[in-house]
Amino acid sequence: MKAMVVGATGTIGKAVVRELGSRHDIIEVGHRGGRHHVDITRLDSVRALFAAVGKVDALVACAGNVHFGPLGEMTSDQFLIGLHDKLLGQVHLALVAQHQLNDGGSITLTSGVLSEDPIRYGASASCVNGAVDAFVRSAALELPRGLRINAVSPTIVKESLRAFGAYFIGFEAVPVERVAMAYARSVDGAQTGQIYKVW
Amino acid sequence: MKAMVVGATGTIGKAVVRELGSRHDIIEVGHRGGRHHVDITRLDSVRALFAAVGKVDALVACAGNVHFGPLGEMTSDQFLIGLHDKLLGQVHLALVAQHQLNDGGSITLTSGVLSEDPIRYGASASCVNGAVDAFVRSAALELPRGLRINAVSPTIVKESLRAFGAYFIGFEAVPVERVAMAYARSVDGAQTGQIYKVW
Repeated sequence: MKAMVVGATGTIGKAVVRELGSRHDIIEVGHRGGRHHVDITRLDSVRALFAAVGKVDALVACAGNVHFGPLGEMTSDQFLIGLHDKLLGQVHLALVAQHQLNDGGSITLTSGVLSEDPIRYGASASCVNGAVDAFVRSAALELPRGLRINAVSPTIVKESLRAFGAYFIGFEAVPVERVAMAYARSVDGAQTGQIYKVW
Repeated sequence: MKAMVVGATGTIGKAVVRELGSRHDIIEVGHRGGRHHVDITRLDSVRALFAAVGKVDALVACAGNVHFGPLGEMTSDQFLIGLHDKLLGQVHLALVAQHQLNDGGSITLTSGVLSEDPIRYGASASCVNGAVDAFVRSAALELPRGLRINAVSPTIVKESLRAFGAYFIGFEAVPVERVAMAYARSVDGAQTGQIYKVW
């Protein structure tokens, strides 16, 4: 199987490449790193990526930025970071992939625990993650040619504790290898419209 | 209590004005109709609205557009309608209201059944509704001065069956008065971070 991993150079992406790479051919895509580059906020950049890579069987997205900060000081532009990047960026990937994947292929997006279990300074992240989950449930109804779509919803991973641990006090961090297994469950499995929670 | 209803001229808004108006002073706000006007997609327009109206105890938002259409043909711009209007528009209202409401006041936003129960052509609506629900759960953690925030998540209302009934076959439509009661539960009640489902 050919699997394209967008966000392949990130903490989760690297673990996904290791997990899927034991069975499948991986095409690594990053914003600046990786063999191929894409700006997921731009639909034309996503289209160019698929045109360059050609047909694949699985698209995995573990990319996308979100602003963390106090609600009382949050600006419209800060809120838009998550809407345009982690949310619309992943929607762009799904909108293009539905026409470009081989029959029976899969799309796997990334949401996160904050959709259901909010924290201080995470209003934008919660919003984006809830949106990704709901998009996946709905998009699964309309995908043609046996295509599937799921989301992986990770909690904080141990490898990100240094950067984000202060936001997630009291949350049990999981090893990133456990999160990568959820992506494999989506790619190698048969389900669609599922949210695989790793928490 | 002074309650500002944004989207006061819509199907749900009119019922909310009737329900809340039996106990409270209502300030009716519309995009073009109503006593006051606002473009919720623009933060400066929302700020100008609050500056014109002054202090209120409750903000109710039942406004916001979303594009319905086949996923296979959906464009980035069509998807952005819901993100910028129903989602970011309501977030704008909450971001400004948190500084402008009287102590102990409430914010009530509108999501919808499609966040959990998707339909064909509703991927953008599902996405936006899931985002509003998750935003409300998270924002409730950070609001100061005893402020509260909830969402009302209605199913299709009987009064909208002519326009949208074809999308919602098999869904039990509810009278808009029942939906209006959920807004009253938020405004007159004491809970926060809740999603009041009317389905």
